[in-house]
Amino acid sequence: MKFRVKDMDIATGGPQVVTLNNEDAEFLNIYHGDRINIKYRSRFTTSIVNIAQSEKAIKKNHIGMYEEVLRKLKIKNNYIVDISLDKKPDSVQYIKKKLNGFTLSDFEINEIVRDITENKLSDIEVTYFVSACHTNIMSMKETISLTKAMVTFGDVLRLKKYPVIDKHCVGGVPGNRTTPIVVSILAAAGLTVPKTSSRSITSPAGTADTMEVMTNVTLPIEKIKKVLAKTGACLVWGGSMNLAPADDRIIRVEHPLSIDSRSQLLASIMAKKASVSATHVLVDIPIGKGAKIENKKQALMLKRQFEQIGNHVGMKVKVIITNGSQPIGNGLGPALEARDILWLLKNDPKAPQDLKTRSVNMAGLILEMAGKSKKGNGRKKALDILNSGEAYKKFIDMVTEQGKKKINPEKIKPGNFSYEVKAGRSGKVKSMDNNNISKIARVAGAPNDKYAGIYLNKHVGDAVKKNEVLFTVYSNNKQRLNFSKEVKNSFIIK
Amino acid sequence: MKFRVKDMDIATGGPQVVTLNNEDAEFLNIYHGDRINIKYRSRFTTSIVNIAQSEKAIKKNHIGMYEEVLRKLKIKNNYIVDISLDKKPDSVQYIKKKLNGFTLSDFEINEIVRDITENKLSDIEVTYFVSACHTNIMSMKETISLTKAMVTFGDVLRLKKYPVIDKHCVGGVPGNRTTPIVVSILAAAGLTVPKTSSRSITSPAGTADTMEVMTNVTLPIEKIKKVLAKTGACLVWGGSMNLAPADDRIIRVEHPLSIDSRSQLLASIMAKKASVSATHVLVDIPIGKGAKIENKKQALMLKRQFEQIGNHVGMKVKVIITNGSQPIGNGLGPALEARDILWLLKNDPKAPQDLKTRSVNMAGLILEMAGKSKKGNGRKKALDILNSGEAYKKFIDMVTEQGKKKINPEKIKPGNFSYEVKAGRSGKVKSMDNNNISKIARVAGAPNDKYAGIYLNKHVGDAVKKNEVLFTVYSNNKQRLNFSKEVKNSFIIK
Repeated sequence: MKFRVKDMDIATGGPQVVTLNNEDAEFLNIYHGDRINIKYRSRFTTSIVNIAQSEKAIKKNHIGMYEEVLRKLKIKNNYIVDISLDKKPDSVQYIKKKLNGFTLSDFEINEIVRDITENKLSDIEVTYFVSACHTNIMSMKETISLTKAMVTFGDVLRLKKYPVIDKHCVGGVPGNRTTPIVVSILAAAGLTVPKTSSRSITSPAGTADTMEVMTNVTLPIEKIKKVLAKTGACLVWGGSMNLAPADDRIIRVEHPLSIDSRSQLLASIMAKKASVSATHVLVDIPIGKGAKIENKKQALMLKRQFEQIGNHVGMKVKVIITNGSQPIGNGLGPALEARDILWLLKNDPKAPQDLKTRSVNMAGLILEMAGKSKKGNGRKKALDILNSGEAYKKFIDMVTEQGKKKINPEKIKPGNFSYEVKAGRSGKVKSMDNNNISKIARVAGAPNDKYAGIYLNKHVGDAVKKNEVLFTVYSNNKQRLNFSKEVKNSFIIK
Repeated sequence: MKFRVKDMDIATGGPQVVTLNNEDAEFLNIYHGDRINIKYRSRFTTSIVNIAQSEKAIKKNHIGMYEEVLRKLKIKNNYIVDISLDKKPDSVQYIKKKLNGFTLSDFEINEIVRDITENKLSDIEVTYFVSACHTNIMSMKETISLTKAMVTFGDVLRLKKYPVIDKHCVGGVPGNRTTPIVVSILAAAGLTVPKTSSRSITSPAGTADTMEVMTNVTLPIEKIKKVLAKTGACLVWGGSMNLAPADDRIIRVEHPLSIDSRSQLLASIMAKKASVSATHVLVDIPIGKGAKIENKKQALMLKRQFEQIGNHVGMKVKVIITNGSQPIGNGLGPALEARDILWLLKNDPKAPQDLKTRSVNMAGLILEMAGKSKKGNGRKKALDILNSGEAYKKFIDMVTEQGKKKINPEKIKPGNFSYEVKAGRSGKVKSMDNNNISKIARVAGAPNDKYAGIYLNKHVGDAVKKNEVLFTVYSNNKQRLNFSKEVKNSFIIK
């Protein structure tokens, strides 16, 4: 049947969607979410149908098209296309199978991930998949299939090197910015570290947000290869590559219900490591209130799962469980964290020692894993590299190669507006609430306002006097700064 | 924050949706599916956010608005609105609770149904609800809450009468058009029967499709009341009222995975009965291959569930289980069924006797339930009313009041194009496949082409000779008719 194209002048950013008039859809027995084939000359594509209720939106015998479809068919407003009903992809049946409590095969998971990646499934269908895996939790075998499929249907950074190092932190702890330091130490030790990081979702900054203060983190894959060839490492935003892209579509439908699917989390992390050719991976699971993992039992289970997947995809994985009960470092927020990192790499006395200890420990473990140091000696070697200034030199090489921005910590000034939070009584800091601290920093504008955030003067265990400054909150937006004052207090002093 | 309105020139037909530019959304920490408050002068509304990836769709500082939102705020292109982040409705938490395997309270189900009805939940959120109820099946208590909530948030036809009669057939059997006959008999006996029916989803016709050949079925609620006042009954399309409207949104997200949720089915049927003030309801569950319910065990469970819900919402419910192994009547498809019904009501010898028997049995049972006839006498009374011509007279009154169309069966001619299907061998008709027969009729154009369908010459048990006509297929579209020849054969002769 012939239809006249109406350019809707919008991109869905997701699946290929077209809109039909209610009457046309009824006549053709097409329902909301069905698929049709659209043909223009020798070109064709499959699209999901939305149905418009009113004549105003789409007139009879017209088909409303979004960017993605217009581009695919290379057509414009008023072109005439031919449409016919298409069947659902097989992956929809596999999703239903999982929803009904059955286990999926390698092949079936592959089909689902391919169709998600190629935007062939609607939000509703992807939601059923997420929901199915949430209630009928994926087995380890299924999770491994999911990991492999995510690698298959995404970009791969092929590096003909051995070993290739990666690290991952399960997250949730503000300020835990070990990555730039660990990567610099390892690269200075001669290891290959193609590090891709994410932006923050719930904390004051992600590694990519922080690095962006100092350098360009959005690099095309060819440029990343050049940086790696020159310096042995990089510190870029993972989003600049198309690693395990199915993940983004899944997260998009998880967000409305804040669903946090364990198998999807494991698969997406491990798929991203495999996609950059990593052979040795260190995973850090900080535990504590407000961290992503709150107790040891969960952490141990996750540790086993990481190791099992590593085994199956041919990666050496070491998992450490660390203390995540309070923020790490002093600066929280992109610029404030960048300043801490630069001080630390330059061996400046203003550097936070807790961040240094953690970074050196982790770098040491990886040096041992990768055979760059004898068992028990890694920590010392890492500390030597850091103290010698080699790590700092390597870091400057990297950020320069990527496109240097601010690298003088004394010139990185936090936001123009600020206020201090003081102790209400004398005593000892008993605990700090990660969630509230993150919230204060985010309400103040972090991470989008790179200069918003918190500088901590006190950590857990420190003695405080009444009216002593606990922390300072910064922002470039006075209104946001004021809003942040309404967040609950984060320190408990006893 | 201020945004300039861009009229997207489209209605979603569902939830209130706006589109923001990717960068704006990032700056405001807004994700796909989040909610924002939109304010224009003293008017405001809440809307779900889509995020546009490209500048082309939505420029920075612009907000793309769909019909529903523009109308709500009474604004146009280029108006300036103020937006702020809104929290998720509580119902989203209740959906997550169900997804995690917990039981929902009356209050929680009420909130979910209200938000679905008021289009406050996105397709993704409604999908999670359907999915949750599919894997963690609703208890009877929850199903009753769902029923009541569906009544609460929909139109109600308040009738100050007692008893008020309704009937329902669980469906799936082609040609099973007892409703117009039963309603006519009951109304002729003086009962109030505000009958709303649906259009077909999978069979050649629904009661509303068939009635539409003879009368207008899309009536405003005030007109329905007038028809009822004059004739005691009506035969209208349920879609013309807004009965249990949450149902439509739920079905819309069930469709992509062909999910058939038992509790949603029960609740929506019973809610629609309660919404028309029914006090006495007869439910017919035909069982057989290709019917919605395929075995007796399922039917008995469903029967108990119908009765339990009836008890709780104060309706007297009687459930009968009937033979649904083959099509009923001879004509299948709107016009062909309408002709059968008129012949039957006029006591024409061409009337299908199986349809007559079923209709009279059902009418008889209801006469007994409603106290219009002594136990064991209902059937005879129903038959008398039918044979006397009173039912026919009542039917003509009703269709005339609603807006008469074709009521002379001799003038209802099936489609212009046709072909006959003949027996390949002599023998006895052993079985007929409901699914294939429906499919032939639908491919030929039913129910949208009202004159498409099938006329059956033979039923199960009939003797046939080789080359004798089994059935004729009609259509007004030659291409569709040809397509229908490709559907598998439906008769098994032995």
